[in-house]
This record gives sequence, C-alpha cells and structure tokens, in this order.
Amino acid sequence: VNSGGPTGADLDAFLDLALHLADAAAPVTRSYFRRPIDVDAKSDRSPVTIADREAEQAMRTLIEAAFPDHGIVGEEFGATRADADYVWVLDPIDGTKSFITGKPLFGTLIGLMHRGRAVLGVIDHTILGERWIGVAGRPTTFNGEVVESRKGRTLDEAWMYATTPHMFPDGYDAEAYARLCEEVKSPVYGAECYAYGLLANGTVDLVVESTMGAYDYCALMPVVEGAGGVITDWQGRPLGLEGDGRVLAAGDAELHRAAMELLSA
Amino acid sequence: VNSGGPTGADLDAFLDLALHLADAAAPVTRSYFRRPIDVDAKSDRSPVTIADREAEQAMRTLIEAAFPDHGIVGEEFGATRADADYVWVLDPIDGTKSFITGKPLFGTLIGLMHRGRAVLGVIDHTILGERWIGVAGRPTTFNGEVVESRKGRTLDEAWMYATTPHMFPDGYDAEAYARLCEEVKSPVYGAECYAYGLLANGTVDLVVESTMGAYDYCALMPVVEGAGGVITDWQGRPLGLEGDGRVLAAGDAELHRAAMELLSA
Repeated sequence: VNSGGPTGADLDAFLDLALHLADAAAPVTRSYFRRPIDVDAKSDRSPVTIADREAEQAMRTLIEAAFPDHGIVGEEFGATRADADYVWVLDPIDGTKSFITGKPLFGTLIGLMHRGRAVLGVIDHTILGERWIGVAGRPTTFNGEVVESRKGRTLDEAWMYATTPHMFPDGYDAEAYARLCEEVKSPVYGAECYAYGLLANGTVDLVVESTMGAYDYCALMPVVEGAGGVITDWQGRPLGLEGDGRVLAAGDAELHRAAMELLSA
Repeated sequence: VNSGGPTGADLDAFLDLALHLADAAAPVTRSYFRRPIDVDAKSDRSPVTIADREAEQAMRTLIEAAFPDHGIVGEEFGATRADADYVWVLDPIDGTKSFITGKPLFGTLIGLMHRGRAVLGVIDHTILGERWIGVAGRPTTFNGEVVESRKGRTLDEAWMYATTPHMFPDGYDAEAYARLCEEVKSPVYGAECYAYGLLANGTVDLVVESTMGAYDYCALMPVVEGAGGVITDWQGRPLGLEGDGRVLAAGDAELHRAAMELLSA
C-alpha cells in the first residue's frame, strides 16, 4: 500500500542513522571552526576544506556500514551509486563563508532521497546547538519540538531571506530577484541553510536562492514541507538531484504562488 | 598627567556598570526573542519595540543611579544630558531584522564617550553567550580572552562584511561600496554588530557600512581599536556622536587606507 516507498520502520532506521551522521560531523566541524590558520581560501589545505572532507568521510563510512546498497552524493567526494533507490545527499559545511569568517551560522545538511523524492532531512547547527529534523509524513521538529511555518502572509508582509544578492546571475535571475525585493517587507541576508530552518519555525516567510546544488537543498525539503511550508524551483517544479539551481521556499502555498508569479513575470 | 581623561580606577568603575547594563538587558531581549506574536513591524506593540524599550529603560535606570551626571543617548528614548563629559550610548537591540526573523545575531551595544572620544564599549550577544569588551588603552577581550585583529591582508585577500547592500544610498555610497565589492576577496552579509566583533577576533578583515547612527557604532570603536584594528568614517575621521553615518573598520591601518582610497576614488 505504500507503493514501494519507505515504511515507518524504514524511516525510523534512516533517521537513526542520519542523527549519527550529524553527531559524527559535529566534532569535526567544531574542531576546525575559528581555528587560526592563515590559509583560508578553498585550497586543499584550508581548514574549511579539511573540515568538509573529514566530516563527509566520517558520514560516508557510517552510511556504507549501515546501508551498503544506498547511494551517496556529497559536496566534497561526489556521487557513489547515485542511481540507487535510496541516495544520501550530504553537505558537511553549508555556509562556507560563515565558517571561514567565524560566524556560527554554517550548518551540516543530511538529506535522503528515495527515487528522486526527499524523504528525510536534517539541518544541524552544531555551534548553536540547534537541529531541525524533517521526515516525510511527519511534523518537523526543532530541537525536539514540533514547529510550523507561518501562514497567511502576503508578499508585502513577508520577511525574505537569501544568502547574498550576489548569488543571482545577471539577467533573468537577478531581474526576477530584484522584482521580488521590491514587493516584500524586507530582504535579509546571510543565513544560508539557517534561513530555511527559521522558515520552518515560522519567523521567516520566504527564502529565494539560485545557483544551488542538490546538496544545498535536498535536506531542506522535508524540513520545510513537514512544517507546512512549500519548497520547489522557481517554476513550482519539485526539486531533485538534477535541477536548475533555483529554489523558492514559502511558509504557505499562497505566498509561494505569489512569489512565483513575480519571479516569472 | 592624563589630561582630564578617565583614570584606570574610573574605567574600572565604568566597566563594572557597563557589564551590569548588559546583564540587565539580556533577560529582557531573551524573553521577547522568537516570541510568537503576530505584530512584528516596528510598531509600538511589536515584540522588538517592547524589548528595545524595556531593555533601554532598565539600562538607563542603572546609569542614573550610578552616575547621575552622565549623559545618555539611546536608540529608543533619545538624548539626556548629551553635553555631559561622559555620555553613555545605548542600542538595546542592534540587528532588528535578525531579532524579528529569529536569527540570534542581534546584539546589545553599550558605549561610553568621554568628551566625544569612545573610552569603553561592550558588544553583548546574549543568545550566543558571546561578549566583547573594549576599554581605551586595554586589550579587547572576547568572553574573557584577549583577541587581536588580523594584520597584513591586502584588499584582494580581505573578507568584508556589511549588514546589507541595500544600506548604501544610491549615488556616492552605493557606487563607492560597489567599487570595494569588486576588489575584496568576498563581500558577506547579515551580521550587524557581530561583524565588528569578528573583525576584533581576526576572522573578518573589513566592515563597511553607511546610514549608521551613533548608537550603532560608539560601542564598536573601543572593541575594534583595542584589538589593533582601525575604525573611522570613510574619510578617516574619528567617529563621534555626530557624523555622516559612514563607517569603515579594518584589521590594520594599511588595509584601512587601501579601502578608504577606493571608497573616495
């Protein structure tokens, strides 16, 4: 009756692993955060690159041990068995610039896709001690408490986040984003994946981004959706491992529709 | 021999008060942070306005009791005895948009000016449990540990913060900022006063902002300067209670000079 999707017991087992992954990545990222090393570019020897790789390797090892037939797509080490039924999508440090500059808003993203559909997502902010958990068909939790996105906001009442206005390529993306900026209550910057968590919590209404990779958004989808929000690309299509990199998340479907109209105007 | 400036004992007494002010503001701002109230504009009844006012009132009461002849300039209640030798400059919640959207990067700013010169500054991030203390002639501390700004970075190696690119008025400010954006390693957004703390810690190299009030920057000056950084307006003039709202902070004097040249090019 569940058409081949994960059972509740499957999801419990996957969630158990996902939490272990977050717990394994956390001490690695913590140990390199604000470490005073002179090399801070994204070179092989930079703390952020070392932390990224060590954390992803730790998570990959745990996945291989628990579910050797699952696929893995990671920001650092690429794709392994990406055509498997289940694919883990990992970003050990989302918010590289936050990490490099000592701002504790970077997060570890752990997503699980089943045949192209996101069924589980964890957003873990280890420095802040804050963790969002989204599981398909279950309510999203923030540090163990159920959260809900804010409903009923119009565009002019909406608090909108993007990581930076510079993330929108000149032309279509930048123009569409500029249109939205003029209509919302206020654009706010610099929260990376944290903004999607705040949207799930009901204190942010819109997040609009572009040039995103699958590892940037797969974990976010179950978190946003389990809180009652909507997250798609700018045309309203579901996000998947392949995509055009454009992401639009909203507290409710009506605000999502209004933002989509402006983006494609 | 100290030409009428505060003695070490004076500064100790002022610092003691400043820490009491931060401790008094913290429970107020904490209690309103992420409080689910529907009104979130800067109206009289919004949580951020209520928290701002209650926190500033609590701090004013303590100052009046300890040093009744000192002046006070606050974001919420304006100026009292602004021509006194000593003037406290208060911003209970710097980073209103962070506060409103549930992002814990807002800070409480407590500055003390002596005849127009900043002699003490506290940047307190109560949700993060992080506090910077700057006292004229003493090294800046971050949670009790001495910190130093990063030296020797060139513009193209510099991590630069601004709260938002939308803070620069069209024309001179926006054009000057755009020139700087093109030369630095990366512009990053959304940290408000926290960015100046990170500059003191040596993980951020430049902060450039405009349209700032005295309550936005007075507390930052001793923190930045005590860590070895430089903070002035865009022409290199000292910041004071009166100013044109433009602020430039850098990890060292050479980077500051290079940024200044580009801003006024």
